[in-house]
Amino acid sequence: MTIANSRDRALRERAAAVIPGGMYGHQAVGLLPDDYPQFFERGEGARIWDVDGNGYLDMMCAYGPNLFGYANPEIDAAYVRQLSLGDTLTGPTELMVRLAEEMVAMVSHADWAMFCKNGTDATSMALVAARAQTRRKTIVRAKGAYHGAAPWCTPRGAGVLDTDRANQIFCDYNDVASLEAAVAQAGDDLAAIFAAPFKHDAFIDQAMPDPAYARRARELCDARGAMLVVDEVRAGLRLSRDCSWSLVGVKPDLSTWGKCLANGHALSALMGADSARKGAAAIYVTGSFWYQAAPMAAALETMRLVRETDYLDRLASLGERLRAGLAERAAAAGFGLRQTGPVQMPLFLFDDDPDLRKGFFWSSRMLERGVYVHPWHNMFLCAAMTEADIDGLLDAAEASFADLKRQGPALEPVEKMAFLAGAPR
Amino acid sequence: MTIANSRDRALRERAAAVIPGGMYGHQAVGLLPDDYPQFFERGEGARIWDVDGNGYLDMMCAYGPNLFGYANPEIDAAYVRQLSLGDTLTGPTELMVRLAEEMVAMVSHADWAMFCKNGTDATSMALVAARAQTRRKTIVRAKGAYHGAAPWCTPRGAGVLDTDRANQIFCDYNDVASLEAAVAQAGDDLAAIFAAPFKHDAFIDQAMPDPAYARRARELCDARGAMLVVDEVRAGLRLSRDCSWSLVGVKPDLSTWGKCLANGHALSALMGADSARKGAAAIYVTGSFWYQAAPMAAALETMRLVRETDYLDRLASLGERLRAGLAERAAAAGFGLRQTGPVQMPLFLFDDDPDLRKGFFWSSRMLERGVYVHPWHNMFLCAAMTEADIDGLLDAAEASFADLKRQGPALEPVEKMAFLAGAPR
Repeated sequence: MTIANSRDRALRERAAAVIPGGMYGHQAVGLLPDDYPQFFERGEGARIWDVDGNGYLDMMCAYGPNLFGYANPEIDAAYVRQLSLGDTLTGPTELMVRLAEEMVAMVSHADWAMFCKNGTDATSMALVAARAQTRRKTIVRAKGAYHGAAPWCTPRGAGVLDTDRANQIFCDYNDVASLEAAVAQAGDDLAAIFAAPFKHDAFIDQAMPDPAYARRARELCDARGAMLVVDEVRAGLRLSRDCSWSLVGVKPDLSTWGKCLANGHALSALMGADSARKGAAAIYVTGSFWYQAAPMAAALETMRLVRETDYLDRLASLGERLRAGLAERAAAAGFGLRQTGPVQMPLFLFDDDPDLRKGFFWSSRMLERGVYVHPWHNMFLCAAMTEADIDGLLDAAEASFADLKRQGPALEPVEKMAFLAGAPR
Repeated sequence: MTIANSRDRALRERAAAVIPGGMYGHQAVGLLPDDYPQFFERGEGARIWDVDGNGYLDMMCAYGPNLFGYANPEIDAAYVRQLSLGDTLTGPTELMVRLAEEMVAMVSHADWAMFCKNGTDATSMALVAARAQTRRKTIVRAKGAYHGAAPWCTPRGAGVLDTDRANQIFCDYNDVASLEAAVAQAGDDLAAIFAAPFKHDAFIDQAMPDPAYARRARELCDARGAMLVVDEVRAGLRLSRDCSWSLVGVKPDLSTWGKCLANGHALSALMGADSARKGAAAIYVTGSFWYQAAPMAAALETMRLVRETDYLDRLASLGERLRAGLAERAAAAGFGLRQTGPVQMPLFLFDDDPDLRKGFFWSSRMLERGVYVHPWHNMFLCAAMTEADIDGLLDAAEASFADLKRQGPALEPVEKMAFLAGAPR
């Protein structure tokens, strides 16, 4: 069984001519199995179709933005209605104020909001606002944590200077002693501690936040007059209707939001407490499309669905069904499969699989069976998924485990992932 | 005569509670006359309506994005059509390749394109790609030129560190000797020369590029193996269907595009020659919404209108009508009014007006008469404007010059612009 891919291959050739490296960023498939499609044609609900017409249950949800289903009729209708009135104008609309009010009402630590386009805009604004607020330079953040793709934080060093990364100290997530040591190193220059709501680094097991770590981060910021920043860009609205660290009883000064805030329409946000308002008001940040009204209309409709539907319970219940079902099937087939992170944002890694050859093979078989899973990045559940979707995934998984069992001993090394084999896990 | 503004005032109060400083960025009206509205409700063609229902001929065009008219039916139909198929998905669509192909065909220096959301994304990518390509650090750029709002370039220093601005040397735009001195200072570490297509700094007269300056920038880059970057974010597609410096016969290695690329939908781009491809392929840049298909569909339709309509001639002819008509009316009223920059992107400054009190008064009278002009930022013409619109503007201008003549001697100082009085003009 092979997935049709002639249109995808033709598009890749065209792309190679007019896009450096053929594709860039998180949606480049260079580090995915070779049969993964690069180009898509359509999305609806929980499903996507590639350019060759193959349809998939999409466990990536566009790397997060799809929370209430692709082409959600209510959210997109709100977008289109506002588009006909006014979108990018010579000033903002009332929607910007309403959206800030509604988000402030929803996020318990926050007194204000600023809107932007990229998640990286929001995290970079948090950095600059924290420095403006404290008049200090140094930030502490966890090794390997992704906070965006600007020079100060992008995970690849090409074109980035040491000065772009100056005044950063790294610690280990969930390691209180390491956090304390980093803060001590910052001395009286600590501007902020950055934290992901849980550990969701690529390639390795995810980890929920240790409440002691989160509390200690808050205490250290309080003791030093520094800002605590929780980067919710990836996880926001999937674990809680509030900032995710409300689940461990910790309120940050600043939080960053994006991805599913407008269910896939381009919008992100920096939110903050009054403790960070002065710094936020002092910085100069802007963008040509930051005042766009249509994405804000979509976000208001997304917020309504967040408030008025049981989506959060549904995500948790679907996620638990997936986790339990997959654990059972992996065990039955004799595989050690680590499922980590919150059930709504799962990551699957096989035991004894340093170059991901098992993960790649199994993921490819899942793809052939109409389920798009990711072999090394956390996935995302959306509210458009059903129990039948999860059961279908589990059937595909069972068959794919069987394939892996048959094929396993003959698996070829995955050259392009060999770099992982030597990396700390 | 006073403009109704009760809804605007009420919204400002609400905004002050939930948005730091009440508003941020280039659409905050803090440095505009007090009667300028902060919030808008609607846009159509060349007109905008504020939240109190006042309608204006909009000479700002959303600070550039509006090229073919607000709510352009063809462009927005393309957007909405694609939205129903798929927008932010788990991968890009064919539209990304088509758009790159069409833009490469249009922009003579470019062999490739990368898409992003903010103009600042594009200029920051140019910076990082130039450094990756050359494996050098230093860039030369013109004092006072706006290249975005990231830490390396934002015009306000709050929260920004010296290290964020390291490895930058400044020159004077259009001053060959100053450019040469800056390049000499960079020594063998010159990564790039950045240039606006013309001098469009705020608060001061605009200036067209001296061809000798543009050519010298190209020569210096060639001699040093450095990248020449033309930042077209603001001016792109208004002066030429090609890179603006094609008008002076100079081809950059990199150019940055945004604003009107998709007529107000969120899309920007870095374009480059093969001389910069390797660097561009090496950097890691991405964003949650960078692969969105609907803005690319809108951009393809915008490109079609760029190719198939006489919009460029229309902009020039409307701009010339405006410039000649306004010069005549200003002279008749006895005012020295400097109209600078290309006619499609005019800036008006009164002689002997260091704190802009004349400009503010005159602009306010224009606003009352239904014309939204900007007292210190370049404006933008769009293809939805008509000769009747320009003639209406000129009538309003004549009446407003008369008001200014009457009121002139009694004008109060503009406290908030007093900082300009001491600044070099």
